[in-house]
Amino acid sequence: MEIVRDIVAVRKIIGQIKKDGLKCGFVPTMGALHEGHLSLVRQAKNDCDFVAVSIFVNPAQFGPREDLTRYPRPIKRDVNLLKKEKTDLLFLPTAKTMYPPDFSTWVQETVLSRPLCGAMRPGHFKGVATVVAKLFNIVQPDIAYFGAKDFQQAQVIKRMVRDLDFPVQIKVVPTVRDTDALALSSRNAYLNAADRDNARVIPYSLDVAKRMILQNRHVRPARVIAAMKKLIQARKGSRIDYISICDADTLGPLERSSVKILVALAVFAGKTRLIDNVVVGRG
Amino acid sequence: MEIVRDIVAVRKIIGQIKKDGLKCGFVPTMGALHEGHLSLVRQAKNDCDFVAVSIFVNPAQFGPREDLTRYPRPIKRDVNLLKKEKTDLLFLPTAKTMYPPDFSTWVQETVLSRPLCGAMRPGHFKGVATVVAKLFNIVQPDIAYFGAKDFQQAQVIKRMVRDLDFPVQIKVVPTVRDTDALALSSRNAYLNAADRDNARVIPYSLDVAKRMILQNRHVRPARVIAAMKKLIQARKGSRIDYISICDADTLGPLERSSVKILVALAVFAGKTRLIDNVVVGRG
Repeated sequence: MEIVRDIVAVRKIIGQIKKDGLKCGFVPTMGALHEGHLSLVRQAKNDCDFVAVSIFVNPAQFGPREDLTRYPRPIKRDVNLLKKEKTDLLFLPTAKTMYPPDFSTWVQETVLSRPLCGAMRPGHFKGVATVVAKLFNIVQPDIAYFGAKDFQQAQVIKRMVRDLDFPVQIKVVPTVRDTDALALSSRNAYLNAADRDNARVIPYSLDVAKRMILQNRHVRPARVIAAMKKLIQARKGSRIDYISICDADTLGPLERSSVKILVALAVFAGKTRLIDNVVVGRG
Repeated sequence: MEIVRDIVAVRKIIGQIKKDGLKCGFVPTMGALHEGHLSLVRQAKNDCDFVAVSIFVNPAQFGPREDLTRYPRPIKRDVNLLKKEKTDLLFLPTAKTMYPPDFSTWVQETVLSRPLCGAMRPGHFKGVATVVAKLFNIVQPDIAYFGAKDFQQAQVIKRMVRDLDFPVQIKVVPTVRDTDALALSSRNAYLNAADRDNARVIPYSLDVAKRMILQNRHVRPARVIAAMKKLIQARKGSRIDYISICDADTLGPLERSSVKILVALAVFAGKTRLIDNVVVGRG
């Protein structure tokens, strides 16, 4: 595995890959890798001839009161995990490389970015779209891989790719869950035993929501949300950031015509904000 | 010359060009081509193996009271001019192709876009940056060519390319002028004889400014602007939109450290808004 810190070096390697006509897969990450990330890498290895991974804790997608500085950065462990997966290239830029002092250009998706996490974390998806646009231009992958846990992020990126005509295919890979059903997240490392115990209500409440919808595909969203709220609020030490039931394609209100229903939520377990979601077909 | 209207067809042609290892030059235009555009095409032909030109009157860069609908579209004439230059590919998309109804992603440069034309035409450079990002992703050129008449546009695009790491080199080609020194512009077609006569004060005032600066490289900008104003206001039927003397690199106020001085202006000749500029080295 080549480990590269500067953009020119990546371009050189990728230039050769393109010349050789190899298919390039790309997994952008913020590091602190877990089985969720590794499932993206394995999917990329399966689809492509050459797999690049980036690790970059992107300051632009953190709010001023968020966890940028304490976000976990176990880089040696990450490198070993990626080597085991036979990753071909690890791009490991610094913040200075990605954002020179007079950086002034932003990519902003303005519709799908607005509700859900976008409403709670202003500027978050602008930071995400901008860094992903940069990474796509640097790595020039044929296929890029994103996790379904960050459902809204994947929707925003897919829209950006369509709108700005990036020559990249986006693949969304199912969420990987722990034995207690909690979705894997780098932020799970923040949880103490009590938080972790409380956090189990997140996948549980989603499962309840899914069953309510499957029983009655036209159940009122407010009824489902009320049931979820009740479950979550019963756990002291957990606090709801948002719960939303919406059209999975538009992220707008459910319509009669909606084909897939998204149930998404953000919940604080202790001080740690966790997100999760489930998509239920109406078919 | 291949004339292509849809994105998939462009990708197919460009894919083959890349496979063959050919260097691709790209000249994005809004059509109504003149010798200024053709000088870009000739430079591209000189530098590259394959030259693509786009003609697209980009609605996103016109303000609501601007000349989008009456912008000249002499497409047959343009096609013939491009054939004569041995252009390889003409991309001629529709507005629907470029902006589907639920289009929602924008590229915005936030510093160099603000003064000069950016202050007078809110949203203009957001429209420019977005369409150029799209065109770069569709055509994937090695080198893209822009005219020096639109100095601020070229600066914004260069910054966007740097910030978002587009794998494209930007070349800025000198302004082509008519025998009366008026910079060539598709909008010159709007001018009647009296407007045209008035418009000559634009390059003349720039020339006066240049000579004042060359005589005294630390002349106060306000003195130069006053001299230009006097000349322009002496022509009835001309109206100043703005005159600016600034640092050519930052587009901010002139500093002791400024290396190049930009004198830029927009003037209405009759109802037609024309822009022009000159850059004077301090060295």
